[in-house]
Amino acid sequence: MITDKMKNLVINGSAIRAMFEDGKNLKAKLGAENVFDFSLGNPSIVPPATVKQAILDILENEPEMFVHGYMSNSGYEDVRDRTAQYINSQHGTSFTRDNIVMTVGAASALNIAMKVILDPGDEVVLIAPYFGEYNNYISNFDGVPVVVSPDYERFSINFDELEKKISPKTKLMIINTPNNPTGAVYTEDDLTRLAALLTKKQQEFGTTIYLISDEPYREIAFGGLKVPYLTKFYPNTFVAYSYSKSLSLPGERIGYLVTSSEMEGFADTMDALNVANRILGYVNAPSLMQRVAGRCVGQTSDLSVYEENMELLYNALTEYGYDIIKPKGTFYMFPKCFIADDKEFCAAAKEFGLVIVPGSSFACPGYFRIAFCVDKQTVINSLPSFKKLAEKYTSVK
Amino acid sequence: MITDKMKNLVINGSAIRAMFEDGKNLKAKLGAENVFDFSLGNPSIVPPATVKQAILDILENEPEMFVHGYMSNSGYEDVRDRTAQYINSQHGTSFTRDNIVMTVGAASALNIAMKVILDPGDEVVLIAPYFGEYNNYISNFDGVPVVVSPDYERFSINFDELEKKISPKTKLMIINTPNNPTGAVYTEDDLTRLAALLTKKQQEFGTTIYLISDEPYREIAFGGLKVPYLTKFYPNTFVAYSYSKSLSLPGERIGYLVTSSEMEGFADTMDALNVANRILGYVNAPSLMQRVAGRCVGQTSDLSVYEENMELLYNALTEYGYDIIKPKGTFYMFPKCFIADDKEFCAAAKEFGLVIVPGSSFACPGYFRIAFCVDKQTVINSLPSFKKLAEKYTSVK
Repeated sequence: MITDKMKNLVINGSAIRAMFEDGKNLKAKLGAENVFDFSLGNPSIVPPATVKQAILDILENEPEMFVHGYMSNSGYEDVRDRTAQYINSQHGTSFTRDNIVMTVGAASALNIAMKVILDPGDEVVLIAPYFGEYNNYISNFDGVPVVVSPDYERFSINFDELEKKISPKTKLMIINTPNNPTGAVYTEDDLTRLAALLTKKQQEFGTTIYLISDEPYREIAFGGLKVPYLTKFYPNTFVAYSYSKSLSLPGERIGYLVTSSEMEGFADTMDALNVANRILGYVNAPSLMQRVAGRCVGQTSDLSVYEENMELLYNALTEYGYDIIKPKGTFYMFPKCFIADDKEFCAAAKEFGLVIVPGSSFACPGYFRIAFCVDKQTVINSLPSFKKLAEKYTSVK
Repeated sequence: MITDKMKNLVINGSAIRAMFEDGKNLKAKLGAENVFDFSLGNPSIVPPATVKQAILDILENEPEMFVHGYMSNSGYEDVRDRTAQYINSQHGTSFTRDNIVMTVGAASALNIAMKVILDPGDEVVLIAPYFGEYNNYISNFDGVPVVVSPDYERFSINFDELEKKISPKTKLMIINTPNNPTGAVYTEDDLTRLAALLTKKQQEFGTTIYLISDEPYREIAFGGLKVPYLTKFYPNTFVAYSYSKSLSLPGERIGYLVTSSEMEGFADTMDALNVANRILGYVNAPSLMQRVAGRCVGQTSDLSVYEENMELLYNALTEYGYDIIKPKGTFYMFPKCFIADDKEFCAAAKEFGLVIVPGSSFACPGYFRIAFCVDKQTVINSLPSFKKLAEKYTSVK
């Protein structure tokens, strides 16, 4: 009796769940110590101590009717002030509370932006490989995903194909930098080129093309790399942010959407985002966690373990013969499989206790994703398995 | 550049906001002590002490990666267990965790249910007067609202008209008991009759007609009245619940959806709700507040002030000549205006410092809503104004 559309989504959901079940089944078969589950992008490090301290301090010192009560659908004014000030201090931008909507994580930030701008049939450009959930969000508003195939050199943007795929029906492009699943970070040159292309296409077609930069991994960038801020490159930009990874609070559903003041119809857009937050059933970002985010903006968990894990894995796996574009951020790595069939490769990996995700799930067959948001010892213990997996395909010279 | 659909929603949103601004402007004009703002359904009483105690205890005794982390999209198993057990203890039902999805308030509970069952063009029956936000939720899924006009005798259900308005395209009916804006509570007889009618129509058309009972006011029932539990009357029932009013936590966005085990395709529906919670961008109900809800299920704020306010207002206003169906629950009252034009009436009320909402906002012109979730002294102080407002229309005999 559920809709056909939902039936298909449930089938997909079951496939994902089945993959997660694999880890459990493998542990029963091989012993827990011989299974290395790299399937889930779930933070492995505790929130910074300031999160707990902030909650205790808020409960002690802020009125509870205020802390747990309704506020503007866009969020508490003071929290939006502090958020804007922090972004300005990092990126030399000039945001105020009026650029910020506090949201139920980055997922709802993406959804309210799409609710405001997408008409049925509008095309949304995605750069493969990409987070599969974007397809579902686009489908919520009857948009049409248009996928640009991967840039296999750097996992940046395949600009020649992008240029061909932008049409008069293109309303939106979504980018994700630092990137899930590749760990790529787009350079200033990439973004300058992207902005120029979108601007040219807007003029050519007489349309507005919006850009959403989805940035839950902004703070996980390696070697002190600074991730460029998108509103400085292109005016019609939204930035979706989440505290899930930076503060290790994925269950709390707290994030925000930044809208460039230079966006066409900026004031109308902000009014509409406020309404969209309400009518999509979010109403507002959870109130206590908004107050926590206001106090903890700019702070992070100790993210260094992700870089250590990355270096360990990258050095060992390249030595074993894996072909990998070295990640510049996130807690993901996206090596090439030794065979064309990534599903077969990931199935074979299970023999060695490795739970990894086929690149097909990210519209990029022939690759696989390692989510290395696990403790360092798990990475170290897993290396012999990655070696054996490589030898399975390379030992016969 | 925003969509035309959103433009219209923003215009509506601005009208609501303008009404809320009225209170502020009136205070500047008449003095704060002479303004009585009954426009907003925002709890006026503090959460029970157990909420703060629960948060402190959770922070002290539960692992923080668990408290702030991801869980099943449907919510923590133990929280769903306790929720089911509590409902069973109150209503003699037999729910388990498998009937419960924890949600971002009742708003998201309604949205995930509609995502799962509504195809574009499906009709959704609403009973006037009703909470206007239902129209927006239905619109999120391209459903078509079909409004049954009010039962002016009891603000129950106009069954004759309902029978005519159920068509082969009817997929869903939404009821809200205790009711916003009338305070009505449907009786067991009402619900038995409703269930029989829906069952008959399902057979007649060979269709499935779902029922959502939206119950954020369940615990605010007067004189010890017990509000019947809908799944006991009709198998294809969802119950949407929120802790916003019972625990005075409206900003925290925490609630749940109960699905009857007797629903057609129950298992598929539960799988689909789990997926819908994810892909609509909620992902899961906020984790810390889920844990709080698990500990505080069955507890409430001291709700007695609402009943005291109701009695005060009802007795005084009927004495002044207002025609009122006495509320049986909620913190709303829905008297008849002294003139047909409810907007004119509510504008006139401002002269006396009264901020009240026209019945037109609830698809019931000629009436007005008083949200008496304010402190008792405000109610007492407002009575002379209600008297003067009545005299304006009744003094010339």
